[in-house]
Amino acid sequence: MSYTQNIDGCFGAERLARADIDAVLANTEPALTRLRAQHGDHALPLLRLPEARDDLAACEKLSAHLLKDTSNLIVLGTGGSSLGAQALAQSVDKYRPIGLPREGAPRFHFLDNLDPFAMDAALGQLDLRTTRFLVISKSGNTAETMSQTLSVIAALEAAGGGKYIKHHFGVITEPGDRALRRLAEQYDIPVLDHPPGVGGRYSVLSSVGMVPAYCLGLDAAAVRAGAAEVLAPVLAGAKPADIPAAVGAALTFACENKLGARSQVVMPYGDRLERFAMWHRQLWAESLGKDGKGTTPIAALGPVDQHSQLQLFLGGPRDKLYTVLTQGLAGRGPRIVSNDSELAYLNGRTVGDLADAEQRATVDTLIANMRPTRTLYVPALDARTLGGLFMHFMLETIIAAHLSGVDPFDQPAVEQGKVLAKKYLQEMRR
Amino acid sequence: MSYTQNIDGCFGAERLARADIDAVLANTEPALTRLRAQHGDHALPLLRLPEARDDLAACEKLSAHLLKDTSNLIVLGTGGSSLGAQALAQSVDKYRPIGLPREGAPRFHFLDNLDPFAMDAALGQLDLRTTRFLVISKSGNTAETMSQTLSVIAALEAAGGGKYIKHHFGVITEPGDRALRRLAEQYDIPVLDHPPGVGGRYSVLSSVGMVPAYCLGLDAAAVRAGAAEVLAPVLAGAKPADIPAAVGAALTFACENKLGARSQVVMPYGDRLERFAMWHRQLWAESLGKDGKGTTPIAALGPVDQHSQLQLFLGGPRDKLYTVLTQGLAGRGPRIVSNDSELAYLNGRTVGDLADAEQRATVDTLIANMRPTRTLYVPALDARTLGGLFMHFMLETIIAAHLSGVDPFDQPAVEQGKVLAKKYLQEMRR
Repeated sequence: MSYTQNIDGCFGAERLARADIDAVLANTEPALTRLRAQHGDHALPLLRLPEARDDLAACEKLSAHLLKDTSNLIVLGTGGSSLGAQALAQSVDKYRPIGLPREGAPRFHFLDNLDPFAMDAALGQLDLRTTRFLVISKSGNTAETMSQTLSVIAALEAAGGGKYIKHHFGVITEPGDRALRRLAEQYDIPVLDHPPGVGGRYSVLSSVGMVPAYCLGLDAAAVRAGAAEVLAPVLAGAKPADIPAAVGAALTFACENKLGARSQVVMPYGDRLERFAMWHRQLWAESLGKDGKGTTPIAALGPVDQHSQLQLFLGGPRDKLYTVLTQGLAGRGPRIVSNDSELAYLNGRTVGDLADAEQRATVDTLIANMRPTRTLYVPALDARTLGGLFMHFMLETIIAAHLSGVDPFDQPAVEQGKVLAKKYLQEMRR
Repeated sequence: MSYTQNIDGCFGAERLARADIDAVLANTEPALTRLRAQHGDHALPLLRLPEARDDLAACEKLSAHLLKDTSNLIVLGTGGSSLGAQALAQSVDKYRPIGLPREGAPRFHFLDNLDPFAMDAALGQLDLRTTRFLVISKSGNTAETMSQTLSVIAALEAAGGGKYIKHHFGVITEPGDRALRRLAEQYDIPVLDHPPGVGGRYSVLSSVGMVPAYCLGLDAAAVRAGAAEVLAPVLAGAKPADIPAAVGAALTFACENKLGARSQVVMPYGDRLERFAMWHRQLWAESLGKDGKGTTPIAALGPVDQHSQLQLFLGGPRDKLYTVLTQGLAGRGPRIVSNDSELAYLNGRTVGDLADAEQRATVDTLIANMRPTRTLYVPALDARTLGGLFMHFMLETIIAAHLSGVDPFDQPAVEQGKVLAKKYLQEMRR
């Protein structure tokens, strides 16, 4: 396994007893049995993605189309159509932290939030002739994504580039008669299928994540291989205690029901997992938050949140479970040189040494303050380990939903707002 | 006032009664009286910043030093030494959404998170000859900021630029004998005072925010003028009901104690307030989260979180207060053109029309689902209105702390982790 889960910090005074977990763990058996069956009869397509390879050539082909003579590559898509790719981009591209692309590679932008000023900037400031757009919408009619796409096409046509539109776009959407697919056909834009039956927040291992992966120069097959490795014990019928995702799901359930933990803080250390925590936030919130149930996922980031949220985590109410994602950081980064006696403790260390010491100190301080804390340690973050983390948390979420008695795959509450927005738009003065 | 607060959505079935607020509002009187007194006797320097102008020339001078022949300007600072400036940068620079600087202006980077890979990227990929660093640390010995600064100096010296170091840096730190000040003296780096007695999370109106404001080409005085406008009714002895920050504080207290709201979601609509929500998150978490008390601030962003957190907000437990920051977005952004009948509702609208309809729809849907929801509406976001929002939430936080009986200005719990990190660093094999 490409990561190590440690839940010891969840036991002891003001926290759980070992027996609390064992009792819940037994109740994960039906969910695990169902997952095995759903893999067997292909009822949950998500579970077949890790082993799939035959669709990757088409993903690579679409990425080649998007990379041709390209200075800027913009992903238009929202929620699950963007966050997985954002996590992939951030995790492996060491230049992204300061906004620089890899040498010879285009600059990546994820316009996942509908913002009129951001769209003005994109259309007004980028060289549209060498700007490409990957449009991702499962339903093929997401209002935000369609608006962005249609405004780009209008801008290209206004600039006299109407006949080149197909060179500027690639599309991923579900099969069937959909607005986005009709638009793509109108302009002869290449289209890849969003796999049917895979919800947006569970789609990172599909074309939705793999096309961006190829665009980023990532090893897409390695992402899937890492996911397969984490799924394997589930498919092999391992005991719940030997499946980290089942242990994690039991832990979240026990913390909620035994300790009254209403929130789960997911706090990676290091910039490269910042978006991963946002990806997890959507996954958990939409999958578990329904029927009046659901703990609240809180995305944090280390070390910076030591100077922001940590005071509350340590000194506030005991209403949270803490999941800290730690990485092998020691020895990384530039070296620190100081001749100041007050800073002697830093002299000769690397930036990564300090970050490493801080992630361990935060975990130990949370535990010393009797806050239930688990760690997932990743020695080296790469495409494979990230694929494993994606699968861990997707499985954990599905199993947790089973324990809570909710459907992990729907999002019934958000429809009302969509209808209302349409109504308000129609009432607006033109 | 540059914004309008509306708390009507907090009253009704499953929410508060008007009397719940009135009772708490009376209890804000002592806090308001104390604030007036602290302004009078200069006991809380924060309250004197909105009217101050005599320090701005020095701020502008330091910014001129940092802008000379500059391609990249990096702010080194963490928590309160960065988030306010991030909010300023994002709110007013329409090019930032896609990572482009204003024409002729340097590219801004906020390295507020200690990350070895980000530091490698900064030192390895940027042209250091034209890269400048604004180093901000109130204490003058923040481990992360000192490590970053010292590793930059080492890299500059290794590249033969040792004698030009003073041209690369500006420093903001408190007066007195401090490691950062000693370092600045050693290299003849210009230093500005971090005003004593102003905590990091309350420092955005000081040099900490004003130097970056000048670097960004912002009207720093307008930021302060906006803050002064919001502070004015407090200083004039207005009734609590006529002071939006007092009403807001009473609301958070009543929602926590009458409704069991354990969290407050702060959800701005539009990219330009995304960092503002992060600034507020620190302010609230560190000021209120102590002595086992404190509600949890949750940063959200619209419209994108309609596709992420909104399902939980609408369908999950009734344990949150919702604060939606809405902006005047209608008519903004590029126009949408579509000949598809399914998308007829978008045809002829602008991207901002849709975003505007969505922010209203989200507010109304939260209320229809009987979730306590207030709005702060800003017709036009600029330096002045942003200054007003900063002051509103600082006052609200201080008053809320008074209601909860905690000290809004300390952060006692985080010291333990700092000590432990130092210990682990010392034990590490070199």
